[in-house]
Amino acid sequence: MSLQDKIRSIPDYPKQGIVFRDITTLFQDPDGLKECADQITAAVAGWNLDAVAGIEARGFITGAPVAMTLGLGFIPIRKKGKLPAATYEEEYALEYGTDQVEIHRDGIKAGQRVLVVDDLIATGGTAMAGAKLIERAQGTVAGFSFIIDLPDLGGCKRLRDAGYRTHCLMEFAGG
Amino acid sequence: MSLQDKIRSIPDYPKQGIVFRDITTLFQDPDGLKECADQITAAVAGWNLDAVAGIEARGFITGAPVAMTLGLGFIPIRKKGKLPAATYEEEYALEYGTDQVEIHRDGIKAGQRVLVVDDLIATGGTAMAGAKLIERAQGTVAGFSFIIDLPDLGGCKRLRDAGYRTHCLMEFAGG
Repeated sequence: MSLQDKIRSIPDYPKQGIVFRDITTLFQDPDGLKECADQITAAVAGWNLDAVAGIEARGFITGAPVAMTLGLGFIPIRKKGKLPAATYEEEYALEYGTDQVEIHRDGIKAGQRVLVVDDLIATGGTAMAGAKLIERAQGTVAGFSFIIDLPDLGGCKRLRDAGYRTHCLMEFAGG
Repeated sequence: MSLQDKIRSIPDYPKQGIVFRDITTLFQDPDGLKECADQITAAVAGWNLDAVAGIEARGFITGAPVAMTLGLGFIPIRKKGKLPAATYEEEYALEYGTDQVEIHRDGIKAGQRVLVVDDLIATGGTAMAGAKLIERAQGTVAGFSFIIDLPDLGGCKRLRDAGYRTHCLMEFAGG
């Protein structure tokens, strides 16, 4: 059974016409997390990394095992109001309205090369906000790693067009 | 430097008189996550586990590396409205009002022995709700593991009084 076969597809969620890719079925597989972490760490072997950032909340489930496997620290990028010390904030667009993500100002040391991990990339809005946070904290975005790419939504292309390296374990065409 | 020395204490957060224990400084330490995962997996070695559940969101950062180290699946216990398939829900008390957590109905197989992981235990309200979710899904709570215990708030005692095994890596007296 491939990693991709471990993803559950839920039709018409969260609304009519959308197929939701549910990664929890991969995480609850005894080998799922380790296979993901091993494949990601192999793919980023030449990226010269100093730290791993994960985007709340499913990016924590993917990013923490990757950080541990690489022997690097893990930095959470969180929704607004969740981090207790001084933060940088970035806004990003939702389908209706905006949201914000934050990083601790001292979460990254100046010049550190950071891998940004999330479970899925759609339009790339959150990922771009994460990159800005790392750069405002004087880190360098060494690249992005996602388990699932939805290529029709253009997120990876948007990141590559902005000069960022990206890696995805699998893709689902058609959104 | 001990694991406990890697926790940052933030006075008067989120309000006057409270000392917030900030675990992000431990996670961003290159050895922090692995030391936690190694110490937790050693402590639960005799617990005969089938799966690991983590409570959103910091429990994901702790729980996923523990699940991977143990070679077990990881089941997220999430805030209301975040899981796409059929769920069980449990309410728990906050200082003012209530909140809810959910688990996928098929996240656990009947009879599985589940370790519940979170970063910190205070009054134990979320942990008790997590236990109820696992039991409603026909799992067995094999025990709880927390990085930080605040013993003055009584959460671990509450869990033990309810018959659950608990393990904590460190404690901060005084709340």
